[in-house]
Amino acid sequence: MITFVQTDAGNSKQISRRESRGIQTWGTAEAVAGRKMSPKITTELLKQLRQVMKSPKYVQEPVQAYIVPSGDAHQSEYIAPCDCRRAFISGFDGSAGTAIVTEQHAAMWTDGRYFLQAAHQMDNNWTLMKMGLKDTPTQEDWLVSVLPEGSKVGVDPFIIPADQWKRMSKALRSAGHDLVPVKENLIDTIWTDCPHRPCKPLIMLDLSYTGVSWRDKIVALRSKMAERKVLWFVVTALDEVAWLFNLRGSDVEYNPVFFAYAVIGMNTIRLFIDGDRMMDPAVREHLQLDSTLEPEFKIQVMPYGSILSELQAVGASLSPKEKVWLSDKASYALTEAIPKAYRYVTPYTPICIAKAVKNASETEGMRRAHIKDAVALCELFNWLEKEVPKGTVTEIIAADKAEEFRSQQKDFVELSFATISSTGPNGAIIHYKPVPETNRTLSVNEIYLLDSGAQYKDGTTDVTRTMHFGTPSAYEKECFTYVLKGHIAVSAAIFPNGTKGHLLDSFARSALWDCGLDYLHGTGHGVGSFLNVHEGPCGISYKTFADEPLEAGMIVSDEPGYYEDGSFGIRIENVVLVIPAETKYNFKNRGSLTFEPLTLVPIQTKMIDVNLLTQKECNWVNDYHQKCREVIGAELERQGRHEALQWLIRETEPLARAQ
Amino acid sequence: MITFVQTDAGNSKQISRRESRGIQTWGTAEAVAGRKMSPKITTELLKQLRQVMKSPKYVQEPVQAYIVPSGDAHQSEYIAPCDCRRAFISGFDGSAGTAIVTEQHAAMWTDGRYFLQAAHQMDNNWTLMKMGLKDTPTQEDWLVSVLPEGSKVGVDPFIIPADQWKRMSKALRSAGHDLVPVKENLIDTIWTDCPHRPCKPLIMLDLSYTGVSWRDKIVALRSKMAERKVLWFVVTALDEVAWLFNLRGSDVEYNPVFFAYAVIGMNTIRLFIDGDRMMDPAVREHLQLDSTLEPEFKIQVMPYGSILSELQAVGASLSPKEKVWLSDKASYALTEAIPKAYRYVTPYTPICIAKAVKNASETEGMRRAHIKDAVALCELFNWLEKEVPKGTVTEIIAADKAEEFRSQQKDFVELSFATISSTGPNGAIIHYKPVPETNRTLSVNEIYLLDSGAQYKDGTTDVTRTMHFGTPSAYEKECFTYVLKGHIAVSAAIFPNGTKGHLLDSFARSALWDCGLDYLHGTGHGVGSFLNVHEGPCGISYKTFADEPLEAGMIVSDEPGYYEDGSFGIRIENVVLVIPAETKYNFKNRGSLTFEPLTLVPIQTKMIDVNLLTQKECNWVNDYHQKCREVIGAELERQGRHEALQWLIRETEPLARAQ
Repeated sequence: MITFVQTDAGNSKQISRRESRGIQTWGTAEAVAGRKMSPKITTELLKQLRQVMKSPKYVQEPVQAYIVPSGDAHQSEYIAPCDCRRAFISGFDGSAGTAIVTEQHAAMWTDGRYFLQAAHQMDNNWTLMKMGLKDTPTQEDWLVSVLPEGSKVGVDPFIIPADQWKRMSKALRSAGHDLVPVKENLIDTIWTDCPHRPCKPLIMLDLSYTGVSWRDKIVALRSKMAERKVLWFVVTALDEVAWLFNLRGSDVEYNPVFFAYAVIGMNTIRLFIDGDRMMDPAVREHLQLDSTLEPEFKIQVMPYGSILSELQAVGASLSPKEKVWLSDKASYALTEAIPKAYRYVTPYTPICIAKAVKNASETEGMRRAHIKDAVALCELFNWLEKEVPKGTVTEIIAADKAEEFRSQQKDFVELSFATISSTGPNGAIIHYKPVPETNRTLSVNEIYLLDSGAQYKDGTTDVTRTMHFGTPSAYEKECFTYVLKGHIAVSAAIFPNGTKGHLLDSFARSALWDCGLDYLHGTGHGVGSFLNVHEGPCGISYKTFADEPLEAGMIVSDEPGYYEDGSFGIRIENVVLVIPAETKYNFKNRGSLTFEPLTLVPIQTKMIDVNLLTQKECNWVNDYHQKCREVIGAELERQGRHEALQWLIRETEPLARAQ
Repeated sequence: MITFVQTDAGNSKQISRRESRGIQTWGTAEAVAGRKMSPKITTELLKQLRQVMKSPKYVQEPVQAYIVPSGDAHQSEYIAPCDCRRAFISGFDGSAGTAIVTEQHAAMWTDGRYFLQAAHQMDNNWTLMKMGLKDTPTQEDWLVSVLPEGSKVGVDPFIIPADQWKRMSKALRSAGHDLVPVKENLIDTIWTDCPHRPCKPLIMLDLSYTGVSWRDKIVALRSKMAERKVLWFVVTALDEVAWLFNLRGSDVEYNPVFFAYAVIGMNTIRLFIDGDRMMDPAVREHLQLDSTLEPEFKIQVMPYGSILSELQAVGASLSPKEKVWLSDKASYALTEAIPKAYRYVTPYTPICIAKAVKNASETEGMRRAHIKDAVALCELFNWLEKEVPKGTVTEIIAADKAEEFRSQQKDFVELSFATISSTGPNGAIIHYKPVPETNRTLSVNEIYLLDSGAQYKDGTTDVTRTMHFGTPSAYEKECFTYVLKGHIAVSAAIFPNGTKGHLLDSFARSALWDCGLDYLHGTGHGVGSFLNVHEGPCGISYKTFADEPLEAGMIVSDEPGYYEDGSFGIRIENVVLVIPAETKYNFKNRGSLTFEPLTLVPIQTKMIDVNLLTQKECNWVNDYHQKCREVIGAELERQGRHEALQWLIRETEPLARAQ
C-alpha cells in the first residue's frame, strides 16, 4: 500500500513542482464519485471551543487561535478514535489535515487527495485551505494575516512534534505572536462523548518470532547509547515500544501496537502503560516483572500519564554533559521536559534503525506469513474468476472475501490496512477504499486492482495485484507491461551496499517515462515484522533524501503503478527483502545488494504484452512464477486447496517468448 | 570535468556512508606518485599571525583562534592569487581546505583527495585533519576541545558565507565561545608580497551572443523581485554579475569573470567595480553610462570596496515589510549589513536560475563552440595517433597540443579549466593535473584519459575522451563499455518536465552496478555559456537533493567513469542540452524532456565490446557518430583540415553489430 508524504502546511513550500502538480490533480471528481456526504454542523462546537479558548479554567491567558493537528501523542500514522479530534471539530475525517480556529475564522489545511472530501464534510463555518496550490497561505502566514497584534496561538504540546513546534513558533514570533502550549486538550474539554483510550490485552512474542529477547535489545540499545554518550533514551513511537519489549497490542486498528512510552536509562527501564494489562500473568512472566533480576533489567511499570512528570524529574537530575536521546518527532511536551542543553535529538532513533534490519527469525516469519497470504489470494482470485462473470461481486464483497480467506490462515490477527478494492475508474483513485456509496461491481470489462495485506503473528503482508477477468485492451496491456517493467527493474536491481533507496526510484519509472507516462507516488516503503505496514527509515521514493541506506535484512515494498483518471488503475506490488548480491567484480570491497521477493502471488500474464519485454524481463517473470508454483503450490497442496492449486498452475505457465 | 561536493568540516557529519568510503580511498599513494614537494616553512608566519591575532590595531579584543577558509568574497570555485590566503599561511595549495590557527595549534581540514598533498606541502607546525574519516573532529568540535573557556574565534566576515557562519557560530556559542568578525583580513596584514587584486579589461558581449540585453535582464529580474515582494537584490556571485551585464572579464583563471558586485533596486542599478575599466569608451557605450536613459536603467558605478557601506545605507533606509534579496551563499559581512527582519534569503537566486536556462542565441553559440572544440580534438587525436607510438608525447605535451589546436579556433579565449591529461595509473586520480614531477609518457600500452575544455566567446566546452593507442585488454574494453552504457542511459533518457537531475544519476551507474562496479563522483554539472564550466542550480548527482528541476534550455555534462587505482581511469563526457522529447503519450500534459549532445567528438570504437551493448545502445553510438561525421566533417572540410577529416571518418565507422 502506497505511502504519502506528510504535507503539513509548514512544509508545503518545499513541495517540488512535480509533487505539487500531482497533488493538484489527485483530487479529481472521481475521488468522491457518487459519494453523498452531508457536512457536520459545527456552529455550536466552534462556539464552545472559542469559549474554552478564553476560559481561565484551561488557559492562563486567552488564546486567539487554537491549532488542532491530525496526530496523536506518538505521531502515529494510524490513530485511535479518541485521537480523531480534528475530525470531531470539523467533520473532515481524511487522514491528513490541520484545523485552526480563531475567534472569527475556522480553517482546514489538507492536500489534493482530500479537497473534495473536506469540502463535502465541512459546513460553512470552515474555510478549506488547499495545500500545494500556489495561492494557498501556509498556516503561519495565514495566522499572521488574521490575528490581532501580539496574539497567542495555542496547541496541545503532546500532539505537535518538536520539529514542527520549532518551525511554527519561530514564524509566529518573528511576526510578534506567541505559540503557547495548552496543557489540557481543548477539544477534549468539549468532546462530551469522546471514546475512551483503548487499552486492549497484549500479545507476547517469544524468541521463535523475534529472534532476540527484549533483554538483548535493551543491551544493544544501551551500547548505542554509550557510543553516543547519552544516559537516557526516550521511546515515544508506539511501534518502537512494541518492538523493544517483544509485545504487540491492538489499541489502534491495523497497527498491532499499544499505548505506552518507555524511558531507558543505563541501569533502569521504565515502561509507561495503563490498564490492568500488567496484571496478566503471561505478560508479567514475559517481562519478568516478578523475577529476581539484575537491577538493570528490572522494569518499572508506571502509569501512561506520568511520562511527563517522570521525564521532567530525569531532566532535573542531569549533570552537565549528561544527555537524553529523543527523536525529532517526539512531542514538544516531552522534548521540553528535557532542558535544551541536555537533549540529543536525531531524526531516526537507534530502535527505528535496528527494527528495520530483520534478523533470521523475523525474516523466516515474514516468509511464512507471505506464503499463507499467497494461499489466501490464490483462493480469492480463483473464486473471483468464477464469480465475477455472474455480476454479483462488488468491491466490498471482494474485499470481505479476501479477509475471509486470510482469516483462515494460521496466526492471522487482522488486516494490515484498509483494503483497497477498486474496479474501473475507482482504480485510478490511489487511496480508494470502497464504501457503500462508491461500491462498484466487478465485471469482465474492467480492470480490478486489489491492494491488501494482513497481520499474522509471524509477519506483515502488503500486496497489490491488478487483474482483468475478461479480455484487456491492447492499451491496458501496454500500460500494465510498462508498470511490470518498472517493478522488475527495481526487484532485479543490483546496487552497492550503502545505497539509499531513493536512488532506485527512477528505475521503476524509466519504462513509463519513455512513453510519456508516470505515477505520482513513491515506489516503496519499509514494512514492519508483525508491526506497522509503513515503517522507516528506508524506502524507495523520489520524495525523500533523508532515508537511511539499504542494508541486507531490510524489507521494503516495490510498487510502481499507472493511473488513468476516470478509466483504470494499475499497480504491481511485492514486498521484497534486501539480500547480498553476487557480482562479477567487487569495487572497493563494498559488496552489492539486490532484492528477493517475499510476496509470491502470480502476476496476471493475460495483462502482459510479451513483445514489450526484454528476454531478461521475460525470464524474470518465468522464474518468479516458477517459484510461486513451487512454494505456494506445495502449501496449497498441504492445505488441501486443490482448486486454488489448479488456478495457480494455470496462472504460472511460462510466458510464450521465454526459452 | 567532474565537480566535487564542498565538504567543509561543518558538513562532514552529513556525508553519506558511501561518500565517506569514497573519500577515504581517493587519497591513494598514486595521487602524488613521484611528486617531490618540500613543505613550506611557516614558523615565522604563524608567529606573525599570532601576534596580529592579539594586536589592538586589528582586533578589538584578542582572538584565541583565527579561521582561514579557502574562498574569496564571492564564494567562487576558482580564486585569484591574491585570495589564496590559506595556501600562503600553510603551504597547502589544494582546491579545498580550511586552516585554523590558535595560540598553540595550527590545523588544516581537507578531504581525501588532498591528504597526501597536504601532508607533503605543510611543515610540522601543522596538524592535518582528514575529513571524512570517522575519528576526525569537525572544526567546531576541535575548537571546543582546544580553546580556553570563553574564547573568541575570528574570521574574515567577507570570506565566510552566511550559512556557514550561522552553523559555526551556533556550535561555538553553545560551548561558551564566540565567533567574531575580524574586519581586516589578518593574513593580508602579514602577507607582504601579496599580489594585487586583478583588474583586467572587460569583454562586451552583444546581443548576437547573449540573446537578451542587460536592460531586459534587469526588467526580468525586477519582475521576479516584485513577485517576491522584495525591493532590492544583491548580486554577489561573480558569474551572476557578468551574466547580468553581458560583460566578461579575466580576473580569475579559467572563469571569464571580473571582481564586482551589483545592487539592483526597483529604480536603481549600482555596479561596484574597480580600476579604470569604466573609462573604456566601449564599456561606457555598452552600459550606456553616458546616454540619457530612463533613471531606472542608469547605472551608478561605485568603488568595489564601497559595497559594505552602501549596503548598510540601504539596510538603514528600509521601512517595515521592505525586503532585500540575498543568496544564502553571500558573505556574512554583506548579509549582516541588512537587518535580519529585512532579509529575504534563498539558496538559488533568480539570476542563477535564469542564467541556467539558455536562450536560442546562447544555445546556438554553445553549438558553434562545441563544433570548433571538436575540430581541435579531431586534430589532436589524429596527431596523437601518429606521435604516441614514437614515445615522445608526455601528458603535458598532449595537454599543450590540445590547447594549441583550440587556440587556432575563432573566438578562443582561454581554457575553461586545467586540462586533465593522464595516462595509465594517473588516469585513476580523478582530479589529476600533470606536473613535471608526475608527467608520464603516453604509450601504446596504456589507456589515455583527456578531460579538457575551453572558453570561446560564443560558449564554454568540457569534454572527456578515453583512448587507447594500441590494443586494449578485454577487461579494459569491458569497463569502458559499462561506462559507455551509463553515458548512453543518461543521454537517451526521457523524463517528465520538472524532474530533478539527481533522479537520473542511477541510470549512469546501473550497468556498472550490475557487475559490482561504480565510480565515486557525480554524473554531471551545469555548464555556463562563456562562463563558469561548473554552475548551478542543476546537475546530475546522487549527492544533492537541492538541485532545481531540469528545464529545456539547461546545459549539463554527462560524465560517468570507472577508475581502477594504480591501473587506469575511464571517463566519457559530453556536454548535453536539455530539449523537449516527443513521446507516445503525455501524462497530465506535463511534457517530457531528453538530452541532445552538444559535444560531437568520436567515442573510440576500439574500446567498445560490442557484444555488451543492446541493439538500442549500438544504434545510439552509430547515430551519434553519424552526426559527428556530418557536422564536424563539414567544418573540418571548411577549415581545410583534411588529415583530421580522414581520422574522423575512420573513427566514425558504424559498429559491426548495427544494422
